[in-house]
Amino acid sequence: MSKRPYNFYAGPAILPLDVMKKIQKEFLDFDGTGLSIVETSHRSKGFDTVMKQARERTKKIMNISDDYHVVFLQGGASLQFSMVAMNFMNGKKADYIHTGEWAKKAIKEGKTVGDVNIAASSEDKKFSCVPDTYNFSSDAQYVHLTSNETINGIQFQAFPDTGNVPLVADMSSDIMSRKINVNQFKMIYAGAQKNIGTSGVTLVVIHKDMVTRENAKLPTMLKYSTHIEKESLYNTPSVIGIYIVNLVLGWIVDNGGMEAIEKTNNEKAAVLYDYLDSTEFYYGLAEKQSRSKMNIVFRIKNNDLEDQFVEQAKANGFIGIKGHRSLGGLRASIYNAFPLEGVKDFISFMKDFEKKNG
Amino acid sequence: MSKRPYNFYAGPAILPLDVMKKIQKEFLDFDGTGLSIVETSHRSKGFDTVMKQARERTKKIMNISDDYHVVFLQGGASLQFSMVAMNFMNGKKADYIHTGEWAKKAIKEGKTVGDVNIAASSEDKKFSCVPDTYNFSSDAQYVHLTSNETINGIQFQAFPDTGNVPLVADMSSDIMSRKINVNQFKMIYAGAQKNIGTSGVTLVVIHKDMVTRENAKLPTMLKYSTHIEKESLYNTPSVIGIYIVNLVLGWIVDNGGMEAIEKTNNEKAAVLYDYLDSTEFYYGLAEKQSRSKMNIVFRIKNNDLEDQFVEQAKANGFIGIKGHRSLGGLRASIYNAFPLEGVKDFISFMKDFEKKNG
Repeated sequence: MSKRPYNFYAGPAILPLDVMKKIQKEFLDFDGTGLSIVETSHRSKGFDTVMKQARERTKKIMNISDDYHVVFLQGGASLQFSMVAMNFMNGKKADYIHTGEWAKKAIKEGKTVGDVNIAASSEDKKFSCVPDTYNFSSDAQYVHLTSNETINGIQFQAFPDTGNVPLVADMSSDIMSRKINVNQFKMIYAGAQKNIGTSGVTLVVIHKDMVTRENAKLPTMLKYSTHIEKESLYNTPSVIGIYIVNLVLGWIVDNGGMEAIEKTNNEKAAVLYDYLDSTEFYYGLAEKQSRSKMNIVFRIKNNDLEDQFVEQAKANGFIGIKGHRSLGGLRASIYNAFPLEGVKDFISFMKDFEKKNG
Repeated sequence: MSKRPYNFYAGPAILPLDVMKKIQKEFLDFDGTGLSIVETSHRSKGFDTVMKQARERTKKIMNISDDYHVVFLQGGASLQFSMVAMNFMNGKKADYIHTGEWAKKAIKEGKTVGDVNIAASSEDKKFSCVPDTYNFSSDAQYVHLTSNETINGIQFQAFPDTGNVPLVADMSSDIMSRKINVNQFKMIYAGAQKNIGTSGVTLVVIHKDMVTRENAKLPTMLKYSTHIEKESLYNTPSVIGIYIVNLVLGWIVDNGGMEAIEKTNNEKAAVLYDYLDSTEFYYGLAEKQSRSKMNIVFRIKNNDLEDQFVEQAKANGFIGIKGHRSLGGLRASIYNAFPLEGVKDFISFMKDFEKKNG
């Protein structure tokens, strides 16, 4: 078997090894049925337990009150960009906060169905930070933001107060990586493939009041109430996807929940940023106050060395370190399952590279 | 490990054991990377090969010409019900053939966006057969049919000639179970979870001419051109789902392709229907000319014995034999991966049950 490398990919991303070993072990015999999870009916008793547990664990980990529904959908954040706009803007106006590539995609879909007001943007700063002043509309149906941008590596450290206007957040790349106050939001959505599972599952947390505002004329699959009423089983979901999410959520709980996970994530990011700040050889791209703890985007001062860096990193067992094709440079994505030890080993490699090339 | 039962579930359904053993074996090390497939980036070289292979195998198995695009989406047939109507009816008219529960769902979504004409229906026959006369509209944007209905167990043996009006088919429950002439259709879609994989993947085969008629004003994710242009990678797909589809398609090819698979499916259905026809104890619900080769729906003349039958079947290793909750009775779903031997064993059990209770 090939040696397990340190996986810095931005998503689908590293998952806990123990979880994957469990999946492998029971792959031909889920829940004592003699069937594989991939053959298991979504209406079976065994899967019913999985679905309920995934929902309960989500509520527990994120400290979600009973005023919210938790559903698991398909189509990723990309479909949510449209579903949010189709349901809640619907020809009217909404405010969007522009922080980079992912916010831009949400904005694009918003524009297909209504009037988008860019309430704040850090485009003039090349998305090196999140905005700190906002120009909210009084008649906006909602305010949309992207809590973490994977490409430029910036993250909201605190969220704006939007008053009575519902705040909707795409948390695909930092969901369950830190404690947040869910009550600040009327809706949170996230693709599972970074912190809480593999691709093909989208978590949606939505306040009961928000659901009542949905567009009743939309097709059944595009309305949130459909999935809420049927407890994510209106149609056949990704059975293995939700099964994996549930196992990863179990791993989060077993590892101390948000408090412990956040502490480790803080430490992982701190050691790497501290090193970047201590050297002249590398430099980070995000402004300090907006630095992402999930995606650390950096460059080598001598840009020409970057290809060589990526190549040598790979040879040393650090993969996925190349920056996004739209931005270039380097990026270390260190989601929940990425171990602190791996970050430290990577820093050693970086130091070594600096020594040889500095 | 629990003994492997015969899995008669209507979907998610039985998959080839060899395929699942391969998934298990390489679960922690996909393509020699040292990573699991569930951690693998959809932009990686390894997954790129999987995606291309899945597309090519689909074209080969179904004998699809280059006039068609093959894409893999999320959201199941349920989302296709809406996407078809939103893209191609768009306020105008379409013809639908009503054959049961699944056709009804497609019709419901059609009605949310346009004028639906029921061109044929077997509702008056309690959906025990497919219609044989059609009342097509001259101004229909397309004709929609459901090739196989899982609940009442009926299947089109031949497809209607719709002239210049595009024929669109939901083949979720009999895709790649028999040879069909793809050129009769302008679009075919199917959830993967019965014959070609697990849930979370939708196969769409669409003619180039059809794509040009899509509704350009729709959100990006709801337009077929988006997924065609990006070769099913506009957004993160279900990586493990497509990986499994590709392996199942490989199994179909290795087992002789459509010709051999169809032959076995014919034989499986024939032995079971022949037995039903030979006894007074059980009876099939579908009319002979419309009998499904995928879902054999039957009853015991003395309906009261059915609960006992289901229970004893389960004790003997035959699971998922209970009919759909909306119809009651009994159902044996025998998709591609269900072995002939299993059908024969089941008939022995049925005979035995008849002897004890007849």
